Amino acid sequence: MDSHIKSPPTRRLSTGERENAIDRTIPLFPPAIEIDEHNYFDNNEPPEYLEDMICCAQEFVSFHENNRVVLVTSGGTTVPLENQTVRFIDNFSAGTRGATSAEYFLENGYAVIFLHRQFSLLPYSRHYSHSTNCFLDFMEENDGKVLVDPKYQQEMLSVLRKYQTAKDNNLLLLLPFTTINQYLHTLRALSVALQPLKSRALFYLAAAVSDFFVPLHRIPEHKIQSKAGGNKLVMNLDPVPKFLNRLVDKWAPGAMIISFKLETDSSILLSKAKQALERYSHQLVIGNLLQTRKREVVFVEPDAPVLWIRLTPEQEAAGVDIESLIIPAVVERHSAWIRESDNSV
Amino acid sequence: MDSHIKSPPTRRLSTGERENAIDRTIPLFPPAIEIDEHNYFDNNEPPEYLEDMICCAQEFVSFHENNRVVLVTSGGTTVPLENQTVRFIDNFSAGTRGATSAEYFLENGYAVIFLHRQFSLLPYSRHYSHSTNCFLDFMEENDGKVLVDPKYQQEMLSVLRKYQTAKDNNLLLLLPFTTINQYLHTLRALSVALQPLKSRALFYLAAAVSDFFVPLHRIPEHKIQSKAGGNKLVMNLDPVPKFLNRLVDKWAPGAMIISFKLETDSSILLSKAKQALERYSHQLVIGNLLQTRKREVVFVEPDAPVLWIRLTPEQEAAGVDIESLIIPAVVERHSAWIRESDNSV
Repeated sequence: MDSHIKSPPTRRLSTGERENAIDRTIPLFPPAIEIDEHNYFDNNEPPEYLEDMICCAQEFVSFHENNRVVLVTSGGTTVPLENQTVRFIDNFSAGTRGATSAEYFLENGYAVIFLHRQFSLLPYSRHYSHSTNCFLDFMEENDGKVLVDPKYQQEMLSVLRKYQTAKDNNLLLLLPFTTINQYLHTLRALSVALQPLKSRALFYLAAAVSDFFVPLHRIPEHKIQSKAGGNKLVMNLDPVPKFLNRLVDKWAPGAMIISFKLETDSSILLSKAKQALERYSHQLVIGNLLQTRKREVVFVEPDAPVLWIRLTPEQEAAGVDIESLIIPAVVERHSAWIRESDNSV
Repeated sequence: MDSHIKSPPTRRLSTGERENAIDRTIPLFPPAIEIDEHNYFDNNEPPEYLEDMICCAQEFVSFHENNRVVLVTSGGTTVPLENQTVRFIDNFSAGTRGATSAEYFLENGYAVIFLHRQFSLLPYSRHYSHSTNCFLDFMEENDGKVLVDPKYQQEMLSVLRKYQTAKDNNLLLLLPFTTINQYLHTLRALSVALQPLKSRALFYLAAAVSDFFVPLHRIPEHKIQSKAGGNKLVMNLDPVPKFLNRLVDKWAPGAMIISFKLETDSSILLSKAKQALERYSHQLVIGNLLQTRKREVVFVEPDAPVLWIRLTPEQEAAGVDIESLIIPAVVERHSAWIRESDNSV
């Protein structure tokens, strides 16, 4: 398991706690071979490290029991095409939206669980890790010591301070995934771990989740062989079951849930976003186009006109993150959600 | 284009030079719809930045006209499944073999062209970029300045010095790719650029190249749509034409060529490596298994017994890179290749 995870968990789940992590509404014997959201978890085993992660998350939630906690998902999930994986299908995502959003949630007083594709961008280190400059280009040797080049000092100090503050106050929990299966199991487990926070829990699902996958029983053990002169490869992929319904109804009752809709065709963006909102009955869909995602997004909500959030040309030229506009608008809606929930009790 | 590339190229190719980059043996009108190595480049356009890259490479080769130059390819190529790419098939490769090998080639006096998957591991910065630690964890604030934590000073100084030496002496040219198409076009162009070096050019093809792809004319423009309740996705992939023959015969006559064979099934590794050697008539196949690739590889050569190169348990425990054993063995063979070529003139 990735050592992004803070301190190795010191205790295992008790039997009782383990039971709580199991959705009893899922039948033990699936009625059909078709993998859907009812039998997915029976047919696709959890990652071995899952219980350690649950431990970390439970400790984090206890620590922040009176705060707002956001689960930010980030980066693309992979679909392995072989068991000992050489080849996989991936979704385009460097994790910019998730990593940047996490920083603005921290600035707005949230504790953040950052469920991210391993090696995708992370909050704060994103400013340096996937930059076109090599990290060593920020360094220089002086009098036998490695120093940060003076021209990068000021910006790096500002980033380092924010990062240290988040670390020192236990405000950021980094949890990695790679495959769609790891992602789905972890999302379910974290949702359960967040239940004690009720409406103070926020789900900000920015990860690019695969729509199609190869079920476990159809994945070949070894590398698919190619022949000289040319056999073709035909791949049959099943749709990934849609879990947002379960998240809304069963796993995270009371929490506010935000999903993203990424399209490349502008003519269908709004209709797809509205469709998602109707199908899953959650609180907000943030729509965006691949081509313009860094300068405009659209909020689609129940019983409200759509709201475009756009950078002005001046903001764009100045390098303003659009997430600095998105997150305050999200926080405002989450505050309203908490007030409504309190009133309805 | 990625700014890993040193200094923007200052001149464009002349028409004559451009002509040289075209393989005239490729027929303009392919005899069949099947994409093979004869018509691939007619049916799949070069990346827009290719001429800039050729310029960089030509300048680098001129600068090193009396040295040995190795082209190291590294990381996995992607196969886009959509034109405005959201989804793609990827090959597992962090680029560890290539990035580590490049460092040892530099230590052995080679100039290195590092043709790598964008954002995969790079020589020297690999020690920090994909580490499980966040880059910022190496830093601390002291008296209002960002400093490298004293406990990392010594190692970072050693890495930084090697990196600076390579940079100051123009010994390392970083060129990125993402898709299989970018990789193939760039490999062909670089091979031509390396021709003046004759036998002093070495090809060390460690990239994980896709075996199957979707030809340009079959790629859908927009994101593939999934429907609720489940349509399946059937994908038809064609085999990627095998180009090693052309590299050996046409693009890089005189150069020494080394390819890699990665398998997951140990029972077929040797036979697959021998098959590749027979089919392409090049000089060396380095075989390795996904599971053990960091501690053993096998050299398969014409007219020689196979040679296993393995770390001892002591070396493994001490964290020795197996590339520190592989590269000297490769250099020895390249020296012999240069001597033989000189004698045959």
